[in-house]
Amino acid sequence: MTTKIDIHETAKILTEKNDILLLCHKNPDGDTLGSAAALCHVLTNMGKRCAVACNNAIPSKYSYLEIPVFNNEFKPEFIVSVDTASVNLLGDNLSQYSCIVDLCIDHHGSNSNYSDFLCLYADYPATAQIMYEIIISMGQEISKHIADCLYTGLLTDTGCFKYSSTTPQTLITGAKLMELGANHTELVEKFFMSKTKKTVMLEKYTLNNIEYYFDDKCALLILTKEALNEIQPEPTDIDGISSLARNFEGVEVSILIRPVGDGSVYKISVRTGEGADACAIASGLGGGGHIRAAGCEVTGTLENVKKAILMEVENELCK
Amino acid sequence: MTTKIDIHETAKILTEKNDILLLCHKNPDGDTLGSAAALCHVLTNMGKRCAVACNNAIPSKYSYLEIPVFNNEFKPEFIVSVDTASVNLLGDNLSQYSCIVDLCIDHHGSNSNYSDFLCLYADYPATAQIMYEIIISMGQEISKHIADCLYTGLLTDTGCFKYSSTTPQTLITGAKLMELGANHTELVEKFFMSKTKKTVMLEKYTLNNIEYYFDDKCALLILTKEALNEIQPEPTDIDGISSLARNFEGVEVSILIRPVGDGSVYKISVRTGEGADACAIASGLGGGGHIRAAGCEVTGTLENVKKAILMEVENELCK
Repeated sequence: MTTKIDIHETAKILTEKNDILLLCHKNPDGDTLGSAAALCHVLTNMGKRCAVACNNAIPSKYSYLEIPVFNNEFKPEFIVSVDTASVNLLGDNLSQYSCIVDLCIDHHGSNSNYSDFLCLYADYPATAQIMYEIIISMGQEISKHIADCLYTGLLTDTGCFKYSSTTPQTLITGAKLMELGANHTELVEKFFMSKTKKTVMLEKYTLNNIEYYFDDKCALLILTKEALNEIQPEPTDIDGISSLARNFEGVEVSILIRPVGDGSVYKISVRTGEGADACAIASGLGGGGHIRAAGCEVTGTLENVKKAILMEVENELCK
Repeated sequence: MTTKIDIHETAKILTEKNDILLLCHKNPDGDTLGSAAALCHVLTNMGKRCAVACNNAIPSKYSYLEIPVFNNEFKPEFIVSVDTASVNLLGDNLSQYSCIVDLCIDHHGSNSNYSDFLCLYADYPATAQIMYEIIISMGQEISKHIADCLYTGLLTDTGCFKYSSTTPQTLITGAKLMELGANHTELVEKFFMSKTKKTVMLEKYTLNNIEYYFDDKCALLILTKEALNEIQPEPTDIDGISSLARNFEGVEVSILIRPVGDGSVYKISVRTGEGADACAIASGLGGGGHIRAAGCEVTGTLENVKKAILMEVENELCK
């Protein structure tokens, strides 16, 4: 039974607790890491024991967040998941926590109500925007470094304020974080103005192998095992590829399929324009997410996975 | 003799005048057009005669601004240039006004002080941000349509808040315009989220044929006559291609060479990062521009043109 609580109730609960473990979602992005880092730094500044756990190693790209990774240095008494819509998104390495999450702070409308308390603001474009308000409600200081953490989440989950989920309040939060010292220029350069060599190789590969379906309304990008073996990208190199075709003229749904692990599991990223619901497409295969960006994992042969997702796309486009 | 005035003095002067002609700069962009459109609509709402003049026809992309183009329907008594740093940027068709500009509203630090009054805020990333404050100071209502005009200028001159010129005040102005009804989603989609099919074809072609020089610090993109004949792009399809490799890891200079006309003239676009001066490179071959974006035209065979520009790049990188 999940109890929904607001930002002020969340701030009150966090203020009362100690020995707090923050959980990020697997394949972590800037929002789960930046939001968890900011809260962890605030709680530590308050004299509490607090650390962050994630299924995956923190990508080096995010090392500047200086995330205190959990090392069993205390026994967690209060477990908080951050930006994580469902327990399976915690990943295998955090599965021992899946039934004992005390509080979830999230902005995904598809949240599966797995925690005792849930602080959910589905109309916020980033968990970082919720976290900013929680920290303000706690009356805690936001240092330049904490502002950088929160700004990372805000920027990365809004595509630098480009996505339609951006609201006036998002821009005002951005302005406040800049005033508090967030390094706009450096963070924008890092996340939006630089492409690694491997990202360029991935873009070239996908552009050369793009497939179009349903009167070119759906662009299908496939990264094969062979291509990944050849290019050897880091997970962060792949980040932008899923939305590569999203802004192509006429394309309403952009799908990226890529193998994960060594087996026959494929990760599918769905990005949509105004004409289609990404979450509806991903939900059909057991996934979830937002209306413009969602994802799922499917087991099978590449051909079967492709057929399955195209059927979901067709259902959505024919609605 | 130019008198510098602030936003409130500018608002006061505009409130007192009538029969106002607003001048945009040539090859108009979203900021000069959006800012002039907004002011024109406000002055018209106040019962004044007002219209906008530009050297070029208003591109159809901006038709939604509903700019009242000057048609000699009144005798201009007060002439205001908008977002125009020097008189030669007015263009030949507006040269009759070059010595009689009463007021210039601008954000370019390089403004040449050609007007009687100058309202210059060089630390504002867009003239639209100045214009918003002028309209507020005039006490005039900002309708949804006027908000769209101002938001157009703000978005296009900041690269959707990406450029380092973006300040907290820019984001707050953006938030206020969104609250007043500016259509964030539609305008971002229009200016930042759409790539024509031909642009995608050009990107694919250039990615497949990119050449690297000088320890990969220089990326050379060549659009051959054959490729252009096959793809048949409009000039606007090529716009983004010149900066395609600018944000590739390690690339400091991105060069695009493409033939113009049917002869042996090649247009060269130069884009640089922090490490190199684009204008210095283009100047070596008789061209010019800004420190990060410049260009020139060179006559010769493709091989010779390539050699010539690479020599300029080498000179700049070895400085």
